[in-house]
Amino acid sequence: MRAGIIGVTGYGGLELFRLLTAHPEIKEVFLYSSSKQGQLLSDEAPHLLGINENKLRSFEQLETDELDVLFCSAPSGVSSELLPPLLDRKMRVIDLAGDFRLKEADTYRKWYGKKPPNTSFVNKAVYGLSEWNKKEIKEAALIANPGCYPTAALLGILPLVKTKLINPKTLIIDAKSGLSGAGASPQKASHFTKANDSLSVYKMNKHQHIPEIEQTLKTLADTEVNITFTTHLVPMTRGIMATMYAELADDIQSHTVSEIFNESYKSKPFVRVFKENTDLFTKQVYGSNYCDLTFAIDERTNRITVVSVIDNLIKGAAGQAVQNMNIMVGLNESEGLQQSPLFP
Amino acid sequence: MRAGIIGVTGYGGLELFRLLTAHPEIKEVFLYSSSKQGQLLSDEAPHLLGINENKLRSFEQLETDELDVLFCSAPSGVSSELLPPLLDRKMRVIDLAGDFRLKEADTYRKWYGKKPPNTSFVNKAVYGLSEWNKKEIKEAALIANPGCYPTAALLGILPLVKTKLINPKTLIIDAKSGLSGAGASPQKASHFTKANDSLSVYKMNKHQHIPEIEQTLKTLADTEVNITFTTHLVPMTRGIMATMYAELADDIQSHTVSEIFNESYKSKPFVRVFKENTDLFTKQVYGSNYCDLTFAIDERTNRITVVSVIDNLIKGAAGQAVQNMNIMVGLNESEGLQQSPLFP
Amino acid sequence: MRAGIIGVTGYGGLELFRLLTAHPEIKEVFLYSSSKQGQLLSDEAPHLLGINENKLRSFEQLETDELDVLFCSAPSGVSSELLPPLLDRKMRVIDLAGDFRLKEADTYRKWYGKKPPNTSFVNKAVYGLSEWNKKEIKEAALIANPGCYPTAALLGILPLVKTKLINPKTLIIDAKSGLSGAGASPQKASHFTKANDSLSVYKMNKHQHIPEIEQTLKTLADTEVNITFTTHLVPMTRGIMATMYAELADDIQSHTVSEIFNESYKSKPFVRVFKENTDLFTKQVYGSNYCDLTFAIDERTNRITVVSVIDNLIKGAAGQAVQNMNIMVGLNESEGLQQSPLFP
Amino acid sequence: MRAGIIGVTGYGGLELFRLLTAHPEIKEVFLYSSSKQGQLLSDEAPHLLGINENKLRSFEQLETDELDVLFCSAPSGVSSELLPPLLDRKMRVIDLAGDFRLKEADTYRKWYGKKPPNTSFVNKAVYGLSEWNKKEIKEAALIANPGCYPTAALLGILPLVKTKLINPKTLIIDAKSGLSGAGASPQKASHFTKANDSLSVYKMNKHQHIPEIEQTLKTLADTEVNITFTTHLVPMTRGIMATMYAELADDIQSHTVSEIFNESYKSKPFVRVFKENTDLFTKQVYGSNYCDLTFAIDERTNRITVVSVIDNLIKGAAGQAVQNMNIMVGLNESEGLQQSPLFP
Repeated sequence: MRAGIIGVTGYGGLELFRLLTAHPEIKEVFLYSSSKQGQLLSDEAPHLLGINENKLRSFEQLETDELDVLFCSAPSGVSSELLPPLLDRKMRVIDLAGDFRLKEADTYRKWYGKKPPNTSFVNKAVYGLSEWNKKEIKEAALIANPGCYPTAALLGILPLVKTKLINPKTLIIDAKSGLSGAGASPQKASHFTKANDSLSVYKMNKHQHIPEIEQTLKTLADTEVNITFTTHLVPMTRGIMATMYAELADDIQSHTVSEIFNESYKSKPFVRVFKENTDLFTKQVYGSNYCDLTFAIDERTNRITVVSVIDNLIKGAAGQAVQNMNIMVGLNESEGLQQSPLFP
Repeated sequence: MRAGIIGVTGYGGLELFRLLTAHPEIKEVFLYSSSKQGQLLSDEAPHLLGINENKLRSFEQLETDELDVLFCSAPSGVSSELLPPLLDRKMRVIDLAGDFRLKEADTYRKWYGKKPPNTSFVNKAVYGLSEWNKKEIKEAALIANPGCYPTAALLGILPLVKTKLINPKTLIIDAKSGLSGAGASPQKASHFTKANDSLSVYKMNKHQHIPEIEQTLKTLADTEVNITFTTHLVPMTRGIMATMYAELADDIQSHTVSEIFNESYKSKPFVRVFKENTDLFTKQVYGSNYCDLTFAIDERTNRITVVSVIDNLIKGAAGQAVQNMNIMVGLNESEGLQQSPLFP
Repeated sequence: MRAGIIGVTGYGGLELFRLLTAHPEIKEVFLYSSSKQGQLLSDEAPHLLGINENKLRSFEQLETDELDVLFCSAPSGVSSELLPPLLDRKMRVIDLAGDFRLKEADTYRKWYGKKPPNTSFVNKAVYGLSEWNKKEIKEAALIANPGCYPTAALLGILPLVKTKLINPKTLIIDAKSGLSGAGASPQKASHFTKANDSLSVYKMNKHQHIPEIEQTLKTLADTEVNITFTTHLVPMTRGIMATMYAELADDIQSHTVSEIFNESYKSKPFVRVFKENTDLFTKQVYGSNYCDLTFAIDERTNRITVVSVIDNLIKGAAGQAVQNMNIMVGLNESEGLQQSPLFP
Repeated sequence: MRAGIIGVTGYGGLELFRLLTAHPEIKEVFLYSSSKQGQLLSDEAPHLLGINENKLRSFEQLETDELDVLFCSAPSGVSSELLPPLLDRKMRVIDLAGDFRLKEADTYRKWYGKKPPNTSFVNKAVYGLSEWNKKEIKEAALIANPGCYPTAALLGILPLVKTKLINPKTLIIDAKSGLSGAGASPQKASHFTKANDSLSVYKMNKHQHIPEIEQTLKTLADTEVNITFTTHLVPMTRGIMATMYAELADDIQSHTVSEIFNESYKSKPFVRVFKENTDLFTKQVYGSNYCDLTFAIDERTNRITVVSVIDNLIKGAAGQAVQNMNIMVGLNESEGLQQSPLFP
């Protein structure tokens, strides 16, 4: 297969490049850039010297290049302009931005503060939560690849919401991310001297991933709720941890929760269920496509705490995108994604 | 005044030393150690070369030294053995360990897994949450200095619990700490290569600070509840952030919450109330005795999120201890504690 | 005394503010800004909420404000425009930028790539290396405060160069700095995801501190040499370590070097000489005005290795500036600078 | 092929496991432990849950297991006891410890402070610096895999020493390492609160890698010199940077140095030569087997600065060990080692 990447110099794009060039079924990877066409990728990304020496291609070339699958890792707001014309060309398209995730135009407008994309394309887009939407993904032409926080959160709570083990109205998600989630362009909040040795909270109740999680609970678990969701920046490069709280339905015991988690993910190669009350840490999935889960039940309060960890750039972005590509083209889901976590 | 410190080579002890030697009313600081007596503090703590060149004193010397106030920063379980005999000597004692915090012997036994201290001394101990227990502290002979997490949590929620603005039964505390909270002795979890560039969750529903928070809500806010409390290790040296969630009572608006916070802390020099939905970060209090607060109200869910940040070694330990000493001896509460946060 | 700070929102400026507001002889601190006049400092620097609530003053106000001493912490190239008119007003001026450090206009032009300042003002400027130029500083109207790297390097090698214990032609300085040295404005190299968990080398043989060190060796040690000097960025906020290498003159023994170091600094409150071959670390001076030194002699190669550590924002910038002010106005050199290092 | 690993729970061992299980020619990997036999690797290393579920094998099993190649990643002093009996079994053995590196028993005794291994086995051992000793490695039964610092240093300077472009007597190596080089067992120096946000120097002129570098300059470049070598701990998990200084031989120009570097490594897949004066950073090789090089010539001093960066656990340990295995068994040198660096 031949794959293309738009936005390869961003962090999601670099990871797509890394994964796709090592993928056994991908024979060629074309890289596109509007601003840096003609340059070498290694000029921007010196760690790739000698690994890729093809020049970045222009968007004009994209119009005629024959690709089996195109990944778009441009900022939100760009792909909604760029991708629709390409969809007519029967190319499979996987968009890593938020543009095609929210089905309601008003919701998009409210949370992104931008003009929503054309409805007909939004309707075509399939939400690419690989473990829970596989059947739809298989048939899709356009994938809206999930956000990093929603991936971590939904993999942890969907089993419990679907089986009604928890009261979904009580759901609170306290999410923490490494700085790579804030992107590759230097900003005040991601300046080393601001972020190092410090933990910050941001966008309380305002993060655009809130409606994405709520919409998915509705479409995939038939549950309409508003959630409380808080985001934090942790002084680390990669990794997301979501710590999630909810009231248990009556008389739910630990073993039932364990069974539900194990059952939900027993045939899923990238979700690992750890024993109750395990001290998970984000680095245990660093550099891999895994999502690791644990939980703790507190009998004193009848609440459950669910914890999930992912590498935000892999399972939360490029890795899940490649997983979706595998599903779309009928390959083994884990093809090219079996890298072990890098520890320490 | 003459002050003594037991356990000066631990992190709490080092901060006590730093603060007390710069305190305008302390003329002399005596340092005690069981294992390192006769050595120089700067042998253990090279950053103090030339700052302290007195030898560490023995516990035998403690028996005869005349001190106005004694700070004990020994590990939990030590001070309950060490301190009772000293209390007869009319020395003011401030204990930074957990030994004298919990009033119920059974609770102590359950959460600390150790033999509880003698009841008569536990009963004498006053819980040293400076901003909320000042009157009792003034009269106390023995202070049980609050834990780091409870300090951060209680300063954030006490105003709301006391005024019944929130439903206390719905209280969930998601707490995050830097590694210095884990102490000075090398362990697997605090090994640099394990902790660096990673975030971990630990002791879910099992942390010994849970009963401390619950007991204080009862004694200081007349509210008996069980809380959900989770702790995380963040790859930073100092700092605690507590992100707290609760349902609002009916019809509570932002301005009411702001007023309650401002009213509660208007005459408190070390609690700073920030505007609603401020992006707080732990480094804004680094090296200082401040506790900074903000909150966000979510009308969609009728929940409030309260965020507090402290330097765990200062407001969460040594700083609050000195603040309590100031209160006990009738000094201005902020004497010797007015260091500005160190940023960046 | 009344002090003024230009450029208070930069990192050097923030440290000046912190030190001057705690200085016992400074009664008032005026803050100036060209771009942010009328704003509160705490809007830019939330860690100062409640600590400073005066508005930033304009440069017009500076023209009429009566100040005893003015600190200028503007970027290189700005102070050479701004300061000359003020010098006529008999105000003592301490410039933290590089503008007035280099005496030769050609050298300035070559290494800074900018137009050199007016020669007459450059000639008036005294190089503010407090420990080695105290007599001149006392008489000065304008101080060119040393760069961070030169401070660390010169305090380590001047004793050896002056006494001819080393061959100065063989001098090699391998310097490492935390990211705060790169300033407060976000750049690619100081982006958290670029800098974290990584060490970089930069500006080999091209750093503008090279001629500053060479000029000072000439003026203060009568030694004209070219040095090799390399700079690195270490993933930490503060701190500089300079590891320096030179050939020993014939027959020099450890005890002679120890004696020279101890003799040079015995009456200097901010230079601490550690035993030979001590494992120094930058955090042992974090938040303090100390420069700590050690050395190791290798008999196999007849070379000496000298290591010095400073906090780049204090001894390498704001602290030394305040030390110079103390000297200029006849105060005790260490007034307002006796903060203990903050460890951990 | 079937491979075995002794000491798999150390950091070098974990990387060996990661690389060997992904190696296309390795069908089975057996793991040995003296202290943890019978346990699962994932009990010690939770990031490997579901990746390896075989039990750790005992040393008794090692005696009868049929292996093609055995990697020993035990601490120095252990392999010299453990490996000799195995060598009779025609198993290829690659030792990652220092035991078999130094040919002179007295040198080993002096720098390691331990009893040297049996001379006959030391004589059999081939120094596994893959790029410079390939012919010997091909014929070897026992490889002494190079130390992490020597690998970084020697790859940078061997081209210049062999061609006499520098004066080797002037060679100074200033080396900096991440904390994983200090091993997996918690120690004071690698405690997070000690190491974080700080840079330290250690073992000046005393590091056991000094004689290893000197011996290799003698055996591979016929040059007998004493070097100056300093080591530092940088607050990062992985990565080594060696900054090296030497006087140039007469009349050496930049282009000559570039040519020599390019010529030396043109057919070497894992050494990348960057342009003169490139700002190298350790993360550009993170997670990969690359060694990246640059240099800068200073005409003012006639010195050259050479900079090399490696991932200490890969090119500095496990990666080079696998590379040596590939060479020994006649595979392509880069088989199983083509992972791209992980950035950010």
